[in-house]
Amino acid sequence: MRHDGRASDEMRAVSLERGVSRYAEGSCLVKFGNTHVLCTASLEERVPPWLRGGGEGWVTAEYGMLPRATKERMRREASAGKQSGRTQEIQRLIGRSLRAIVDRRALGERQISVDCDVLQADGGTRTAAITGAWVALSDCIGYMRDAGMVTGPVLVDHVAAISCGIVGSAPVIDLDYVEDSSAETDANFVMTGSGKLVEVQGTAEGEPFTRDEFNALIDLASDGIARLVDLQKLTVA
Amino acid sequence: MRHDGRASDEMRAVSLERGVSRYAEGSCLVKFGNTHVLCTASLEERVPPWLRGGGEGWVTAEYGMLPRATKERMRREASAGKQSGRTQEIQRLIGRSLRAIVDRRALGERQISVDCDVLQADGGTRTAAITGAWVALSDCIGYMRDAGMVTGPVLVDHVAAISCGIVGSAPVIDLDYVEDSSAETDANFVMTGSGKLVEVQGTAEGEPFTRDEFNALIDLASDGIARLVDLQKLTVA
Amino acid sequence: MRHDGRASDEMRAVSLERGVSRYAEGSCLVKFGNTHVLCTASLEERVPPWLRGGGEGWVTAEYGMLPRATKERMRREASAGKQSGRTQEIQRLIGRSLRAIVDRRALGERQISVDCDVLQADGGTRTAAITGAWVALSDCIGYMRDAGMVTGPVLVDHVAAISCGIVGSAPVIDLDYVEDSSAETDANFVMTGSGKLVEVQGTAEGEPFTRDEFNALIDLASDGIARLVDLQKLTVA
Amino acid sequence: MRHDGRASDEMRAVSLERGVSRYAEGSCLVKFGNTHVLCTASLEERVPPWLRGGGEGWVTAEYGMLPRATKERMRREASAGKQSGRTQEIQRLIGRSLRAIVDRRALGERQISVDCDVLQADGGTRTAAITGAWVALSDCIGYMRDAGMVTGPVLVDHVAAISCGIVGSAPVIDLDYVEDSSAETDANFVMTGSGKLVEVQGTAEGEPFTRDEFNALIDLASDGIARLVDLQKLTVA
Amino acid sequence: MRHDGRASDEMRAVSLERGVSRYAEGSCLVKFGNTHVLCTASLEERVPPWLRGGGEGWVTAEYGMLPRATKERMRREASAGKQSGRTQEIQRLIGRSLRAIVDRRALGERQISVDCDVLQADGGTRTAAITGAWVALSDCIGYMRDAGMVTGPVLVDHVAAISCGIVGSAPVIDLDYVEDSSAETDANFVMTGSGKLVEVQGTAEGEPFTRDEFNALIDLASDGIARLVDLQKLTVA
Amino acid sequence: MRHDGRASDEMRAVSLERGVSRYAEGSCLVKFGNTHVLCTASLEERVPPWLRGGGEGWVTAEYGMLPRATKERMRREASAGKQSGRTQEIQRLIGRSLRAIVDRRALGERQISVDCDVLQADGGTRTAAITGAWVALSDCIGYMRDAGMVTGPVLVDHVAAISCGIVGSAPVIDLDYVEDSSAETDANFVMTGSGKLVEVQGTAEGEPFTRDEFNALIDLASDGIARLVDLQKLTVA
Repeated sequence: MRHDGRASDEMRAVSLERGVSRYAEGSCLVKFGNTHVLCTASLEERVPPWLRGGGEGWVTAEYGMLPRATKERMRREASAGKQSGRTQEIQRLIGRSLRAIVDRRALGERQISVDCDVLQADGGTRTAAITGAWVALSDCIGYMRDAGMVTGPVLVDHVAAISCGIVGSAPVIDLDYVEDSSAETDANFVMTGSGKLVEVQGTAEGEPFTRDEFNALIDLASDGIARLVDLQKLTVA
Repeated sequence: MRHDGRASDEMRAVSLERGVSRYAEGSCLVKFGNTHVLCTASLEERVPPWLRGGGEGWVTAEYGMLPRATKERMRREASAGKQSGRTQEIQRLIGRSLRAIVDRRALGERQISVDCDVLQADGGTRTAAITGAWVALSDCIGYMRDAGMVTGPVLVDHVAAISCGIVGSAPVIDLDYVEDSSAETDANFVMTGSGKLVEVQGTAEGEPFTRDEFNALIDLASDGIARLVDLQKLTVA
Repeated sequence: MRHDGRASDEMRAVSLERGVSRYAEGSCLVKFGNTHVLCTASLEERVPPWLRGGGEGWVTAEYGMLPRATKERMRREASAGKQSGRTQEIQRLIGRSLRAIVDRRALGERQISVDCDVLQADGGTRTAAITGAWVALSDCIGYMRDAGMVTGPVLVDHVAAISCGIVGSAPVIDLDYVEDSSAETDANFVMTGSGKLVEVQGTAEGEPFTRDEFNALIDLASDGIARLVDLQKLTVA
Repeated sequence: MRHDGRASDEMRAVSLERGVSRYAEGSCLVKFGNTHVLCTASLEERVPPWLRGGGEGWVTAEYGMLPRATKERMRREASAGKQSGRTQEIQRLIGRSLRAIVDRRALGERQISVDCDVLQADGGTRTAAITGAWVALSDCIGYMRDAGMVTGPVLVDHVAAISCGIVGSAPVIDLDYVEDSSAETDANFVMTGSGKLVEVQGTAEGEPFTRDEFNALIDLASDGIARLVDLQKLTVA
Repeated sequence: MRHDGRASDEMRAVSLERGVSRYAEGSCLVKFGNTHVLCTASLEERVPPWLRGGGEGWVTAEYGMLPRATKERMRREASAGKQSGRTQEIQRLIGRSLRAIVDRRALGERQISVDCDVLQADGGTRTAAITGAWVALSDCIGYMRDAGMVTGPVLVDHVAAISCGIVGSAPVIDLDYVEDSSAETDANFVMTGSGKLVEVQGTAEGEPFTRDEFNALIDLASDGIARLVDLQKLTVA
Repeated sequence: MRHDGRASDEMRAVSLERGVSRYAEGSCLVKFGNTHVLCTASLEERVPPWLRGGGEGWVTAEYGMLPRATKERMRREASAGKQSGRTQEIQRLIGRSLRAIVDRRALGERQISVDCDVLQADGGTRTAAITGAWVALSDCIGYMRDAGMVTGPVLVDHVAAISCGIVGSAPVIDLDYVEDSSAETDANFVMTGSGKLVEVQGTAEGEPFTRDEFNALIDLASDGIARLVDLQKLTVA
């Protein structure tokens, strides 16, 4: 039995709310229970230097947390003068996940920057961010399509993410902060709408884990991500 | 006639929503029209070094904008590695404004950090931030009172703020971004519930201004702030 | 009675000494009593990126204090690795004040950087800096005129500044450090030669202040700035 | 057929050379083919603030590359003024991997810092670093044992790492730079001497990958890491 | 013949003006021709961590240039966010030179920070700084003696410095900026009142130099520094 | 008698090993006893901005120490976020020394960056670095010659360096860390193959020194550097 009464394969209440920003070309407020992340997609008519003139576009991501998104106030990174290693690791992950399902040639020589800002954190902020970022990205590309900037398909698939872990010796899905803090193993999975893997990250927080345990986590994640993709489809329909 | 149809002494729709953060001791989402600022008050059992052992507390503020709070995406300050001069100027203003209505001895040797994060910006972010910060601060002190940490009055008055300016030769209140960009004179006023001045900042963006013009701006501000204070009272009632 | 025997409307001894730098196109050592600021104006044949190609020039300012300009030695900002919020706030104020009286089109596509370095600080460094900076700027434009770089009027007016405050319940002008430290209200005014306002900044350090009190401060400032402008005229005559 | 003639399950020549630093309490120069990493373990009689007084120790890691470890010279991070996101991600990975096999209570309230500096890079620097770091750590603990600082077992297992990937549709082990640059999928595995998983990281560089493909990579890694652990045993025997 | 008519062994006009700072415990405005450096000595009742409790004091120095001390305006180091290598090299040199003639045990467990700020630069700023810093330091120690903080001798000797160089194949003393820019060899010498060497720095800017040439430079420096020491004696008499 | 049994004019065992980097155009591992420095020369088809279009090339150097090159682990400069003053001073010295023996016009408009990374430090790292850097530079220019990029002589002479000092009142050559820590005077000399001086740096760590003492140090250095140049000749023969 989990501390909040969920079954081992039960995700928290998930919601995806589109159009939450007046200015961004695409935006989504994603909630995985008490974890709330505001995702905005910003279109820019430029690409990083190493892509100039090649006809391909770029998708990148930045991640941040409001100082009091957490139980204890954390120092503001802008005031500390740098982004932590954790922040950089997460924003690199989000960027790679999104690029995996974008046809960068169809996008044209432009950049989409997706900002994922955590308003409230209760575990799973990176997986919520990826799941919501896809919606913001999708709306941004819809905006471009309406403006005649792109024609064929740019988003070639869905992408969504979920955390799984071993908590009290049992594999469970979508850990909240309490579970995350006591998990023996913690893993994040990013998968496409077609059920393929984009990113797999598993870490033994305490005891190392077996392949059987890891397989149980992938099983849980596959089911959960399929449901997240269904919700994405309903949201943008 | 103003571009959005408002009368010269008409503020935008203002709302103050308490309790928007699950973790902060006090919080308020303040909206002045399309300007939305999330204010959280965090209680910390420590004071800055120069106050240690003196029995007085401290109230400080930090300010930030989400990168796509604005029409054009702005660079994230955490990634740029420093806070801009404008950010620092605003957060110093918010801190001073709040300290003006706090009895720091009654607060005891503790610090309250108020974070004001702009989710969406359409002019007047600093004045909205001060107005909402008072509500967050008030709830934080209510939390302390419930916990028996303070007894007598800590907040000795209300504080709220509004911008006024000369736009198209006419004095108007609560400028939005369009007006702010074309104002000849731009001023911010911070006043208490008893109608006294805490901060006055007036800047000629184009032509220098006369004392008569400046007096017209203070008149507008006095009325507007009185209404903001009324709304604060209704909100925390 | 003020601690140094001045009347409430009496400024400290003010002097403006031109041509104190061998290299700068314009320079002025300004003294307000024991506050000494070295102002240099440097002409550069470039403008900030956002002005390129538009035919308009720019005037900007930087501010610094020598580490032992003050009673207690302060940490050198170059060694701390960043400028404080206070420094940035002041240099932005100086820059805005100067731009208010410059015809940037007549200046042509060039930048004048005015450096204000405080050699000794006894209160009022920012107001002394603005007053002296006008002289340095004026001489820099004179240099340009002699070199045939500009023809019509570039400086459209004078600009000078003074602090006023409520000290021991009485409004006084040109606060020194001792008064500044104990003032209930502290205000800085920047005005033109024609008596118009460019910047108004008033802050309640202790008790909030009334409009009547604030009006008394503007009255004092208007008289004082008129005398500073007279001195500027004598200096550059 | 791989570009350098290796079989798909064939690692590059691996060597582990102990005692390469005159000063470090433990050290190892590890080579995976042309990838050379110098690992040193430094004992320090202090722990991070959050562990003080708790009786537990800490193991941390830092990672760096010499500017010309690579085909093209890279900018020195000390001169750039910060560590890249990639560097931080790798050093966090190394630290977690080592802590997974250390009994931090048996270590006592001390810190071991393991520095992994890449002298030459040809792919797989992080996996070589982890494999060599274990040897340096083991010798550091041997030093402590000789000095009577620890008694019971501190290292509870071996830990080693290897990269695997899908290159030209085929799963292969221990990618060099050429393979790494063209891999469709790239994964790093960290496992213990007992064959359990400590870290799993898989990334689709091009096409997302299937579970079957991922399983093939784990199979390859399990065999490879078992051989690395054997070599570690021979080295410290 | 030198470009300004000086003989090869002729220094520029040198002046040392004491007591130029209202607040510093010791101060000196030193001029070597058009090179003007403001030196202040600040007494602090603390020492660096590595000296605490040992009964010895410390003397340190910081160096800076005003942005328009030079022909072309240079970027302000506080705004650039760091001190250049040249700045750090010079301030380390000044600090070492002063410590060479201070009895740090007689000083007691206190620190004297000497700030050398270049108001105007025409070559030889570091040698002027050292020469003037001695005067500031001497007055600071005089202040301490008057206050009964020290008793026996603290300054055990004078210290002064001069530059010499090979310009147009001829050895000359006290190079100004024009000479410095074209010198084949540039050297700085720091010597005591008793004629001993504290620091010797010689650099071939163009052709390497012979021992004979270097000896000619030391000869020039010895004479020049003796005259600077005489001037110091007159100044503090 | 020196603590390790060497005669006063006896250098430690010196070795120069070429071709230690797979990628660099030139490289050398230099050892002065237990001081080991890896030098790599990297050819880049660009020059600093101020040289563009002038037909001349540039040689620059960077210096670093691995954190555990020393007896006590030192903080990694990349993680501290900046290079120390000492590091910058040394890399400027190395760069100047190499440029003194390069015909920058014959080099053509290209830059050679020489990285000197200290793997192990036992005194004299900067002198070892210069001596080894010449070998790396020589091989880099040999690479360019083979590629037809340069024709005439580019390296116009050898350059090597050695430290000397007064230890226990006696002048000695090539100080190791123990001697360096107790030296009364410490000097570094950089000389060419033709016996001319490129850089002279002498510092009184304790007592100031006499000209006679300094001459004794130059005598020692001249002999030592001649032997280092002989070794360079053998190495690149």
